[in-house]
Amino acid sequence: MTIEKKPVMSMSEKTARRWIAERGVKVEDIAELVVYLQGPYHPNLELKEAIDHVEAVLRKREVQNAVLTGIQLDMLAEKEMLEEPLLSIIKTDEGLYGLDETIATAIINVYGTIGLTSYGYIDKQKPGILQFLNDKSTGQVHTFLDDIVGAIAAAAASRLAHRAAHTE
Amino acid sequence: MTIEKKPVMSMSEKTARRWIAERGVKVEDIAELVVYLQGPYHPNLELKEAIDHVEAVLRKREVQNAVLTGIQLDMLAEKEMLEEPLLSIIKTDEGLYGLDETIATAIINVYGTIGLTSYGYIDKQKPGILQFLNDKSTGQVHTFLDDIVGAIAAAAASRLAHRAAHTE
Amino acid sequence: MTIEKKPVMSMSEKTARRWIAERGVKVEDIAELVVYLQGPYHPNLELKEAIDHVEAVLRKREVQNAVLTGIQLDMLAEKEMLEEPLLSIIKTDEGLYGLDETIATAIINVYGTIGLTSYGYIDKQKPGILQFLNDKSTGQVHTFLDDIVGAIAAAAASRLAHRAAHTE
Amino acid sequence: MTIEKKPVMSMSEKTARRWIAERGVKVEDIAELVVYLQGPYHPNLELKEAIDHVEAVLRKREVQNAVLTGIQLDMLAEKEMLEEPLLSIIKTDEGLYGLDETIATAIINVYGTIGLTSYGYIDKQKPGILQFLNDKSTGQVHTFLDDIVGAIAAAAASRLAHRAAHTE
Repeated sequence: MTIEKKPVMSMSEKTARRWIAERGVKVEDIAELVVYLQGPYHPNLELKEAIDHVEAVLRKREVQNAVLTGIQLDMLAEKEMLEEPLLSIIKTDEGLYGLDETIATAIINVYGTIGLTSYGYIDKQKPGILQFLNDKSTGQVHTFLDDIVGAIAAAAASRLAHRAAHTE
Repeated sequence: MTIEKKPVMSMSEKTARRWIAERGVKVEDIAELVVYLQGPYHPNLELKEAIDHVEAVLRKREVQNAVLTGIQLDMLAEKEMLEEPLLSIIKTDEGLYGLDETIATAIINVYGTIGLTSYGYIDKQKPGILQFLNDKSTGQVHTFLDDIVGAIAAAAASRLAHRAAHTE
Repeated sequence: MTIEKKPVMSMSEKTARRWIAERGVKVEDIAELVVYLQGPYHPNLELKEAIDHVEAVLRKREVQNAVLTGIQLDMLAEKEMLEEPLLSIIKTDEGLYGLDETIATAIINVYGTIGLTSYGYIDKQKPGILQFLNDKSTGQVHTFLDDIVGAIAAAAASRLAHRAAHTE
Repeated sequence: MTIEKKPVMSMSEKTARRWIAERGVKVEDIAELVVYLQGPYHPNLELKEAIDHVEAVLRKREVQNAVLTGIQLDMLAEKEMLEEPLLSIIKTDEGLYGLDETIATAIINVYGTIGLTSYGYIDKQKPGILQFLNDKSTGQVHTFLDDIVGAIAAAAASRLAHRAAHTE
């Protein structure tokens, strides 16, 4: 059991990172959301440091599992391989669906509840890459990915805030 | 937009109920879990009353969305239509996956946090239908369904406890 | 047991409503946040309807319990009756504390995860009454109350959105 | 601001540990719950290793904040310094209160949702120290502490399970 498990785990991280990239999101894009969120409190914050926090979030297995599950559902919706009415709900990013927010909280909670407000804020403001992911005219489905990206940024911002309080 | 929405919603409930039945779970099976959980506190509790609470939980849209999403993932895993490593993780019900518990909490939370302990308890004890859903020898994949069934039972038990406190 | 329980419950609602009022927040203030959140999607939304949704949220026992617990902690912090370091953390509304957000989610979750983004959004924007609650110059402590008010508004907005989808 | 913050933080950990001890719970007691939970899966698990995981959980600030807040409420209830009806609700450990479970989830979520089932299980089974904390005949109030102890054990068990999968 343990012998098979190790490669599965590292394959999770590799696949999660690859899928995020293939769906059009760079680590830098997520790091820019972290700067958007934390810049007001840390004016000297550089993109490089924000990237480090995003990378740390992506190393968490809970985060990888949420990324894989959410993007898989987006991709299957795009290929029309889900059944109705779930297919229509996900394809149209139906506002009352809620499972995209549910999966996002699994990412945020890893760094504590303080990330919830950051997530909610950028989810409504839609700065940077989140605007691109919400452009329905592309034909692509990003119902889960936009919440996942916002949640990773919010988690990274929480991590940064916790570290800053300890070390500054 | 509103004109299309109404049938989609009622189709959600119909489909959620149909999928639960097709995957081998009857409303009575879930109601028996409610009796298992609440029987010690309400010795006169009858299956009929437990069924009413399960029915009320199933009328909630958040619950229907969680049911549709979780069972869809189980069915796609069974048909090997998910990509690796997600396919293996879900097919083997990998203990560290966590998204099955995440989706279950979306159901439980509708009736408050007191359902969390009931859910955790029957998830470990596996009484009644939960034992059947955990039998890996059938070749069926119920990674999400067993948590969904436990969560519906826990939510129905919370509803019953809240109502009993008000009316007894 | 049941005989004592009933008055305790209705006393919970009365006390929760009284404390909210005594701390400077009117039901109308919370309803205005609902209009702020849902106005863009429902241009004909009147304050009166928003008030009805806030009232429905306040009738939920989970909400009352969260209100009582949070405001009690605010009041004890104001009277310096908490022990250190908790007293300083709550009095200064320390950004990394997190329990205020935790208690807020207990309110939001009653109407599903879609309220999370609304809550995060108004918590950062601080429209209306939330700006007053964040004015530290008054000497009053509202570390929990501002999150509770935002959460009640977000829950009421979710309730409104769910109902609108069913009935419009 | 940063200059004051550092001592406050380490004071949080010291105070959280001191309060847990003063309320009658040793780190070993919590570690024994971890062995109870993980023993079936890791037969060679020693108390010493379980203690290390409990210590790691106690170093998390989110956990410390939950511990301080919950135990503070228990202590104030014991001294009758809370107002009614909150005082009676907490003193009698009223089953529908729910805030004790809410605060517990803030601890569990730090190590992912897989801890939810462990927490629910030991909360119902009440092995070891949890039985002592539930003995109402002592006159002490442990409404929050028993959930906090169960949540720390569940989080430590999750941490152990995650590490074991990576290193075995």
